[in-house]
Amino acid sequence: MKKNRIGIDIGGTSIKAGVIAPDGQIVAHREMATPLNPHQGMDQIKGLIGEWLSNSETTIGVAAPGPMDLQNGLFLDPPNLKGWHNYPFVKQFEKNVGKTCLFENDANAAAVGEYYAGAGNKAKSMVYITISTGIGAGIVLNGQILTGAQFSAGEVGNMIITNEGPKREGLNVGSWESLASGTAIKEKVEDVFQSKDGAKELLKRVKNNEKLAVEMFNEWMEHLASGIANIVHVINPEMIVLGGGVMIGKDVILPSLIPAVKEKVYASLRASIDIQPAKLGTKAGVIGASYLPIVKRL
Amino acid sequence: MKKNRIGIDIGGTSIKAGVIAPDGQIVAHREMATPLNPHQGMDQIKGLIGEWLSNSETTIGVAAPGPMDLQNGLFLDPPNLKGWHNYPFVKQFEKNVGKTCLFENDANAAAVGEYYAGAGNKAKSMVYITISTGIGAGIVLNGQILTGAQFSAGEVGNMIITNEGPKREGLNVGSWESLASGTAIKEKVEDVFQSKDGAKELLKRVKNNEKLAVEMFNEWMEHLASGIANIVHVINPEMIVLGGGVMIGKDVILPSLIPAVKEKVYASLRASIDIQPAKLGTKAGVIGASYLPIVKRL
Repeated sequence: MKKNRIGIDIGGTSIKAGVIAPDGQIVAHREMATPLNPHQGMDQIKGLIGEWLSNSETTIGVAAPGPMDLQNGLFLDPPNLKGWHNYPFVKQFEKNVGKTCLFENDANAAAVGEYYAGAGNKAKSMVYITISTGIGAGIVLNGQILTGAQFSAGEVGNMIITNEGPKREGLNVGSWESLASGTAIKEKVEDVFQSKDGAKELLKRVKNNEKLAVEMFNEWMEHLASGIANIVHVINPEMIVLGGGVMIGKDVILPSLIPAVKEKVYASLRASIDIQPAKLGTKAGVIGASYLPIVKRL
Repeated sequence: MKKNRIGIDIGGTSIKAGVIAPDGQIVAHREMATPLNPHQGMDQIKGLIGEWLSNSETTIGVAAPGPMDLQNGLFLDPPNLKGWHNYPFVKQFEKNVGKTCLFENDANAAAVGEYYAGAGNKAKSMVYITISTGIGAGIVLNGQILTGAQFSAGEVGNMIITNEGPKREGLNVGSWESLASGTAIKEKVEDVFQSKDGAKELLKRVKNNEKLAVEMFNEWMEHLASGIANIVHVINPEMIVLGGGVMIGKDVILPSLIPAVKEKVYASLRASIDIQPAKLGTKAGVIGASYLPIVKRL
């Protein structure tokens, strides 16, 4: 009989750990605040998962925010985990916990979770796109995660979709993320509506059918659609799964976004465009992490 | 001992056939004009390869222009092969030649050729981009060709890279192909320089340092770079290989294009950008076709 697997998801706010059954169901789940000090974090992770170790698979997947050095199992300089910069996670984990560790960036881990146990579980190929503070993607092809030569596949936020827009640190002018991320919308909403509630405020006003809000929303959908269409034209995945913070508004977003994407792809592809909201929510990372031991990298 | 393999490349102008050694070298090569009638074409193909059959592998790869129905081995409506529309190639080939046939679109076949026996033969992952009448790509990841759910992976010509440009049949406004293909340049050159020689004329004038030509060329390089940078941000391949008609000007193009691409990708990726000219020229299709029996589809 297959054993359960352990998955860990390290985020800027919390560390989640779970025991996941072979079919992807969560058997147990624990969560704690992320400490500033990674050594303290490691002790706490050991505490979180300690009593699960004897009954679970011996290789443990860990999702964490990039940038990371996957080859050496290090954090690099993730902006939301300042105290953890350059922490040699894999080495410390294997030393402290005594189990093999597989490290992966959180967008890829979430993609793996959605692919095996979420919205994409019937698809052969799937691109998971997360739209929140930034825009990132995880690409799963025939059960293999596309990591890329420098572990940067799916860094789609910097794709160029137009020739104008705000200049943001480290991003191209006209890049997808600079125009269509939650951050981009938050700034526009603050400018125009003097609200700090970003996409949430915009979506509320769209529901009220306010003209200015509807215009801003339509422009956002055009930008989102351009990036998705570009990914379709490169990868032609069976399914696109959308996650991330802004998808709280999926009931307003998807009915506008899906036709906008179809308009921007080759006519022969329109009927087969399949865009689904993510299913696993904030558990995608921990579930996906648990699948890392059985997923090949491409 | 491994046997030689046969590859066939059907184009709008000519049909090429070759015997390829296991190491990718061409042992024999024949070429003939493409007849209007596919039944006649099939007879001639049988004639071209007939005497090779007894000494070669029994599965034969065939490259042909899309769109095609790979599942059923049919031509659909390739604009340069009008008489061959809907011709059930695979079925007819297997009936007439008596060998198993593997059908693939020409950009993917050329990508496979460059990956195994050309510019990409040291790379683990490679995107081959052909810039000629249109712009297309073939993506090879760890020895597997990415075909896509609807066999449309690598149809990168329709990627959106800006918000303006000419409207072309079937393509997005601002799409890569509408701005940066050989056709796009040909039209501009005809407008501005009253020459029908397209990229060739432009490159000649750039070499003479003509101001207007240099401006047009720089804009072209910016557009080409945007599309390549977008592919890098999705796939992060180890190598990009550039082929197609306009690469006759590679000595002028690459020194401008490579820095333009580096400027448009994440700073952390700049040092590892590896862009190479294709090596196999017009033989990429026939060599790539010969590898189809040993290549997995993704």
